[in-house]
Amino acid sequence: MELVKKLLKGDRLSLARAISLIEGRDDSVRKILDEVYHLTGQAFIIGITGPPGAGKSTVTDKLVAEIRKKGEKVAVVAIDPSSPFTGGAILGDRIRMQSHNADTGVYIRSLGTRGKHGGLSKSAKDVVMLLDAAGFQWIIVETAGVGQTELDILKLAHGVCVVLVPESGDGIQMMKAGLMEIADIFVVNKSDRPEADKVVRELVTMVGLGDALKHHDDEPGSFWSVPVVKTKATFAEGIFDLFETIQKYKEFAVKSGKLSEKRESFLSDEISEIISDKIDRKLRKKLTSDEGRKQLAEVMQKAKTPHELAEKLLKEIT
Amino acid sequence: MELVKKLLKGDRLSLARAISLIEGRDDSVRKILDEVYHLTGQAFIIGITGPPGAGKSTVTDKLVAEIRKKGEKVAVVAIDPSSPFTGGAILGDRIRMQSHNADTGVYIRSLGTRGKHGGLSKSAKDVVMLLDAAGFQWIIVETAGVGQTELDILKLAHGVCVVLVPESGDGIQMMKAGLMEIADIFVVNKSDRPEADKVVRELVTMVGLGDALKHHDDEPGSFWSVPVVKTKATFAEGIFDLFETIQKYKEFAVKSGKLSEKRESFLSDEISEIISDKIDRKLRKKLTSDEGRKQLAEVMQKAKTPHELAEKLLKEIT
Repeated sequence: MELVKKLLKGDRLSLARAISLIEGRDDSVRKILDEVYHLTGQAFIIGITGPPGAGKSTVTDKLVAEIRKKGEKVAVVAIDPSSPFTGGAILGDRIRMQSHNADTGVYIRSLGTRGKHGGLSKSAKDVVMLLDAAGFQWIIVETAGVGQTELDILKLAHGVCVVLVPESGDGIQMMKAGLMEIADIFVVNKSDRPEADKVVRELVTMVGLGDALKHHDDEPGSFWSVPVVKTKATFAEGIFDLFETIQKYKEFAVKSGKLSEKRESFLSDEISEIISDKIDRKLRKKLTSDEGRKQLAEVMQKAKTPHELAEKLLKEIT
Repeated sequence: MELVKKLLKGDRLSLARAISLIEGRDDSVRKILDEVYHLTGQAFIIGITGPPGAGKSTVTDKLVAEIRKKGEKVAVVAIDPSSPFTGGAILGDRIRMQSHNADTGVYIRSLGTRGKHGGLSKSAKDVVMLLDAAGFQWIIVETAGVGQTELDILKLAHGVCVVLVPESGDGIQMMKAGLMEIADIFVVNKSDRPEADKVVRELVTMVGLGDALKHHDDEPGSFWSVPVVKTKATFAEGIFDLFETIQKYKEFAVKSGKLSEKRESFLSDEISEIISDKIDRKLRKKLTSDEGRKQLAEVMQKAKTPHELAEKLLKEIT
């Protein structure tokens, strides 16, 4: 495919077009992904999540600048929490791109959350794969902190930064929200606000407690103790530290085997998704056919149970 | 099954045990559901959702009392927004039951959101089916308004009440949250608060606008115009009106064919879920076998693409 060749050579317009094809679940998606697959597996994928208003976009933007100082290529995929109903396009990609405008080492793209189950969509994973193949060494996936997407980030990112602000609430609330369990790094942003130090202390205490419970028999250094990094992202303060910490985490993930473990588990999930997509499509076709509607009607009238019909259909479509 | 026979005769302990089996995805689930399936399709399922703090539980509890005045049986399934990580059990079912304690026409049960994708779990649907078979004419599914669960309620409820309070924000925010698109009935609770009338006016205006756009060619009476009901649930005020409105909606749904349309669509979803569950289980088994791991390793090493392996596995497991 001409498009793929061009995007691999660094043509941004082709990259943008390929991403749009992926987003629209075009029939060519499989071909695109098959063609680039052998180039993937190089990027480190950073998830950035946290409650609304924590400053995730600002942290991301400054992190991009910091990564660029090292001369490494970085792509940002921002997942938009638009209603699955409106399925909406979004945000100011162009506005966000402005500060990195002339820089071909940066690519920023927003995606809607149009996934079957509303969370991080299959498209997001495919887009990340494409960006990986296109040679971006770092890929930042930024998810708006609403509901399920925080958790789905675990299925996509190699390391997760949870961005909090002093107003995010106390430690107990954060634990309840499940944020403690997904963070590889905590970022306390807007750290000049009152209460910031209290939040940092609480987080450090909770991390320490968790370590004591989970790792009491482990050698120091053999496990990752979640660090807490303070930032004032608007002024780019603390961002150098944050990137250092991310690099340390990456090193740990490589050495400990955690990274390849995650890659294998993501791959296994992907294969499972490809298969269920395929089955689902065949099934929908079947169920909307005349014969399928007749069979559904039989179940509606209790002549068969759903399980019985499911078994029959499964035999027919495979 | 003895258990099923007993629960169908009204034995509450057996009902509770069967629900626990469903929640734990016990192997007997299919047998239970197959055995009761022919008794289902009688209940009307009301979804109650809305932002946190809107008073959904109170509205639900008073609605239960109102339904009981008519002598009809009612069950409540409360979906808990517990973290998918903690998977937690929950709430004060017992506390909530107390006011209906001696009443065998009421059954209340909380479920965790342990679904594969974090939303309303497959278990919730199965529990609703069981309660339907057990003879509850009304089943209220109450979902905490966090993220995806509001939307998933559409896949389960025959009619959805969205409960708001004056503090829920203005109309634009509600539209953004997708609440306009899921409501069959709006409930403005705590309607004695300042701003309540403003919210009611905004909702009425927006419903009117939507009707004008979507139904400008339809006969009056041929479509459902979403009503706005004011309640002070703590004092049971407005609950009579609310139940009247729900009954009117039910009548509309029956007459217009909307109810059987929904039932058919839910059934078709269920069959699709049963099938993907089956496939998923087989696949996981395959992928964790020695042979499966070898095949995964090949893809990791780029000797095959994920799509190629998926196709191979699909042939093998079906």
